[in-house]
Amino acid sequence: MSTETFSRPEQAQAEPIIILVRPQMGENIGAAARAMLNCGLSRLRLVAPRDGWPNEKAIANSAGAQDVIDHAQVFGTVAEAVADLQIVYATTGRSHDINLPVESVEDATPFIEAAHRENMRIGILFGPERTGLEGDDIKYANRLMTIPLNPTFKSLNLAQAVLLVSYLLTHQQRLQLVAQNSVPKVRPMATKEALDGLMRQLETALDESGFFTSAEKKPSMLKNLRAAFTRMDLSEQDVQTFRGIIKALSLRR
Amino acid sequence: MSTETFSRPEQAQAEPIIILVRPQMGENIGAAARAMLNCGLSRLRLVAPRDGWPNEKAIANSAGAQDVIDHAQVFGTVAEAVADLQIVYATTGRSHDINLPVESVEDATPFIEAAHRENMRIGILFGPERTGLEGDDIKYANRLMTIPLNPTFKSLNLAQAVLLVSYLLTHQQRLQLVAQNSVPKVRPMATKEALDGLMRQLETALDESGFFTSAEKKPSMLKNLRAAFTRMDLSEQDVQTFRGIIKALSLRR
Repeated sequence: MSTETFSRPEQAQAEPIIILVRPQMGENIGAAARAMLNCGLSRLRLVAPRDGWPNEKAIANSAGAQDVIDHAQVFGTVAEAVADLQIVYATTGRSHDINLPVESVEDATPFIEAAHRENMRIGILFGPERTGLEGDDIKYANRLMTIPLNPTFKSLNLAQAVLLVSYLLTHQQRLQLVAQNSVPKVRPMATKEALDGLMRQLETALDESGFFTSAEKKPSMLKNLRAAFTRMDLSEQDVQTFRGIIKALSLRR
Repeated sequence: MSTETFSRPEQAQAEPIIILVRPQMGENIGAAARAMLNCGLSRLRLVAPRDGWPNEKAIANSAGAQDVIDHAQVFGTVAEAVADLQIVYATTGRSHDINLPVESVEDATPFIEAAHRENMRIGILFGPERTGLEGDDIKYANRLMTIPLNPTFKSLNLAQAVLLVSYLLTHQQRLQLVAQNSVPKVRPMATKEALDGLMRQLETALDESGFFTSAEKKPSMLKNLRAAFTRMDLSEQDVQTFRGIIKALSLRR
């Protein structure tokens, strides 16, 4: 799953659906829509939004994600909002009195990803800003999901919670690939021959300036200098710049 | 690294520092502080906040993370804000004209985690809301970091960017539990202040040698030199070696 997998509404049939249950502030609905689209998700459902629907503040705060707002589906109850889904996660910090383990979002994601590959219809419930989900909402969940945060400061804005879950859902594959084979980026680089030329010029200039006070230490100093310049991943242009600097400094006075 | 690793200010000496460069809205500073503390990070620096400091809106919007706000350090320039740091990342969507690769935050995190274990002082720059970081800010960065988002809808609120980076930094270990990976090597590195000293000495020497034939091009040449030296990941010893070289070459004859 990547941001490319989920992109436009017409391709989005199998996307996990973000379901905001009794959201209070239109601003937060808009910010959640923006966060979803940042991660390439676009399917939003609302259950009994406090201030009705449509909501001007949601549109204003969606910062260009109005498409997500326009396509949002509104339901009166959680039961209706999840009726056509196959797998429902509830996001919560508590285990409630329901006998379900609480998984971290990272632990939940591989399962959601696998379910997505099987074209399962998946929804993720987020509770109201102040109170979170209630037991009556939780009962529709197959599983509970929590975002593992600082235990002494867990309180997260609704849109921030949607952002983190959306990001982790859509980037999990990437995060696992990174560890296995992060591909080094390659800059345009000077040839070793060009670097040799630079090092020879530097050695000559340093010899003439009396830099090497100990003949014994000279080879290791040159080796370290060479290593330092090698680490710079110099381009041909960089090599010319350094050659110019050495020449200018050496010709001084 | 886990949220337990970073928790209270007194334990936080080696925590990565979040640096907001010329932030505009107090609300966003507060929301960023809250997002940091959600992830167990508490060290915040501000460079030239637009509306001055302290800022009532920042406090109001920190939602209980006032400790982070109260301990925020304010600087006039990026140079001062990074002076005591050893590794600086700049968050940006663009590669600018500086010859540094842009890593995804996931690619960057294992290196930051390794550097953290070595007690390196690490900072992460975030630019102003509207414009992001400029080339003059970027030149202090060893590396560039980007959050890989929906390519057609990348615009992210400042606090949301801080949240994602903070979360991924502090939860990377957890995300990588499935995959074994080698630990990136971290070299002992000089402070930015030491590098500043080297750059000043080089500029003076180049001025005196007549290296800068065009006053107009001097700033961009210095910026590129700074970037090249930053890429070298110099140790304190390396800095001393280069200072010795410049001195020796300049005093020649």
